[in-house]
Amino acid sequence: MFHGLSAFPLTPLNETGINENEFVKLIQRLVAAGVDSIGALGSTGNYAYLSREERFRVLQLAVAYAEGIPVMTSISALRTIDVLRLAEDAQRAGASAVLLAPVSYQALTDEEVYSLYYQVTCSLSIPLCVYDNPRTTHFHFSDELHGRIAELPNVRSIKIPGVPSEPEAAKTRVSHLRELIPSSVTIGVSNDPFAATGLNAGCEAWYSVLGGLFPKTCMRMTRLALEGFADEAHRLSKQLEPIWSLFRQYGSLRVVSAAAEMDNLISSPSLPLPIQPLNDSVREHLKSMLVDIKLMEAS
Amino acid sequence: MFHGLSAFPLTPLNETGINENEFVKLIQRLVAAGVDSIGALGSTGNYAYLSREERFRVLQLAVAYAEGIPVMTSISALRTIDVLRLAEDAQRAGASAVLLAPVSYQALTDEEVYSLYYQVTCSLSIPLCVYDNPRTTHFHFSDELHGRIAELPNVRSIKIPGVPSEPEAAKTRVSHLRELIPSSVTIGVSNDPFAATGLNAGCEAWYSVLGGLFPKTCMRMTRLALEGFADEAHRLSKQLEPIWSLFRQYGSLRVVSAAAEMDNLISSPSLPLPIQPLNDSVREHLKSMLVDIKLMEAS
Repeated sequence: MFHGLSAFPLTPLNETGINENEFVKLIQRLVAAGVDSIGALGSTGNYAYLSREERFRVLQLAVAYAEGIPVMTSISALRTIDVLRLAEDAQRAGASAVLLAPVSYQALTDEEVYSLYYQVTCSLSIPLCVYDNPRTTHFHFSDELHGRIAELPNVRSIKIPGVPSEPEAAKTRVSHLRELIPSSVTIGVSNDPFAATGLNAGCEAWYSVLGGLFPKTCMRMTRLALEGFADEAHRLSKQLEPIWSLFRQYGSLRVVSAAAEMDNLISSPSLPLPIQPLNDSVREHLKSMLVDIKLMEAS
Repeated sequence: MFHGLSAFPLTPLNETGINENEFVKLIQRLVAAGVDSIGALGSTGNYAYLSREERFRVLQLAVAYAEGIPVMTSISALRTIDVLRLAEDAQRAGASAVLLAPVSYQALTDEEVYSLYYQVTCSLSIPLCVYDNPRTTHFHFSDELHGRIAELPNVRSIKIPGVPSEPEAAKTRVSHLRELIPSSVTIGVSNDPFAATGLNAGCEAWYSVLGGLFPKTCMRMTRLALEGFADEAHRLSKQLEPIWSLFRQYGSLRVVSAAAEMDNLISSPSLPLPIQPLNDSVREHLKSMLVDIKLMEAS
């Protein structure tokens, strides 16, 4: 399941709770587009802002409406004891895999992060994807640490936070990591603006924010890259550059939630305070991009 | 209450729960030393790793055993809605003040952080200390943002994360911030290795990790600095340099918890996994320092 497009949907919410109907509709869009897997409750799915009970409920919904598409979910938490509880919940709710990032308050050492993965993988009976996201965790994996963790039981993929933007440098980076991990472990690129370059450089999966909202366009880009049409994949990514630019400026979560609100897929506001929605002038800017991407989705 | 030594005790815990007796004994040490205030459940008190119920219970204990010394507590959480609940709890439990850091998962903008403080201070009836700790929050306050937040109702202090190590540069930095905030708001230095320089540069308070365990020595340093004996305060801090060096290398939390364990004040382990205790070779190194600091405490 760690190949192709893994689409990460939003979890629409406000200060009074989660909008389950809207979440289900987002899942149904992914099913209709035939994405390769669904990453429910990733960073884009606001897992970090939800209680254990809320995470369980949302995951149950994702599995119930996924129509057999494998669902992966984050089990990240500050304490190991909570990660273990979330791992149990994920298995009970029918997740096909779990995603684990070394989130921290006190900065963690390499040994602490290794021990976390060691302890969690020991008691797990479904695959795990290592979630390397320094923008939210502020932990920086070395490739050597990735290599050690990738040897642990049940580790099947690494979600890396982008690649160098120059294609040859991206290939070198992916190859270096590949040499240090077992062949049973795939490498998936995240940070959408780098997706085409990452896939073209040898990543087997794209863990995608935009794919959670506009799965058809992202599926097309993934297929092109994985079938060897590197230039075409790159060209498609270039067309999305105005969106990538907003992602870089405001964060992908704020942009994708505003897009979903403007498209009337979810109600506004949809993010947990203190995170605020994009303001009207940025939304105005986003409007024409949405017209373009919706044409791409329809084609 | 935002003057002098504010001592931040550990909250001793392990995977099965909090050791309340040990926590109470740590509070009693602070009371015996006559610290100016107690910062229960700061970063050193592991607030980020505890549930709302645990935080309420520990705060109640701190207040009950503080014998009238004002108790401040962190109300930080990822969601505004949870910060507001924790603020209510803090007031119900009898805290004299609250401490609020802009903790984040998704990086926050200046406006989001301002709005967080705005919303919380609106509904608060006890003073608030702004907790500026980029090492754990990864949010960087500008002095201008500090100035805006310091104008909000109930804001009475700013806990800054150290000062430049050169005394004149430290004075310039503290004076610059002072010019931007009302005179009713004090500036307190944290990051213990910078405490003497910060107090000598005009900070009115020291928000102290070491003070949570060795309050007498830290009280002495605070008094010396605040009474104008800058050289003496600096000399005392110099004597503690071996401890500061370990703080820089391993983080103050790991060092202070190991010291408390080695001194049989608390049982081992005392930190939430995945955070691991200091290893034996570092503890060996810490041993002689503990002999010195205990002599200082007894003198």
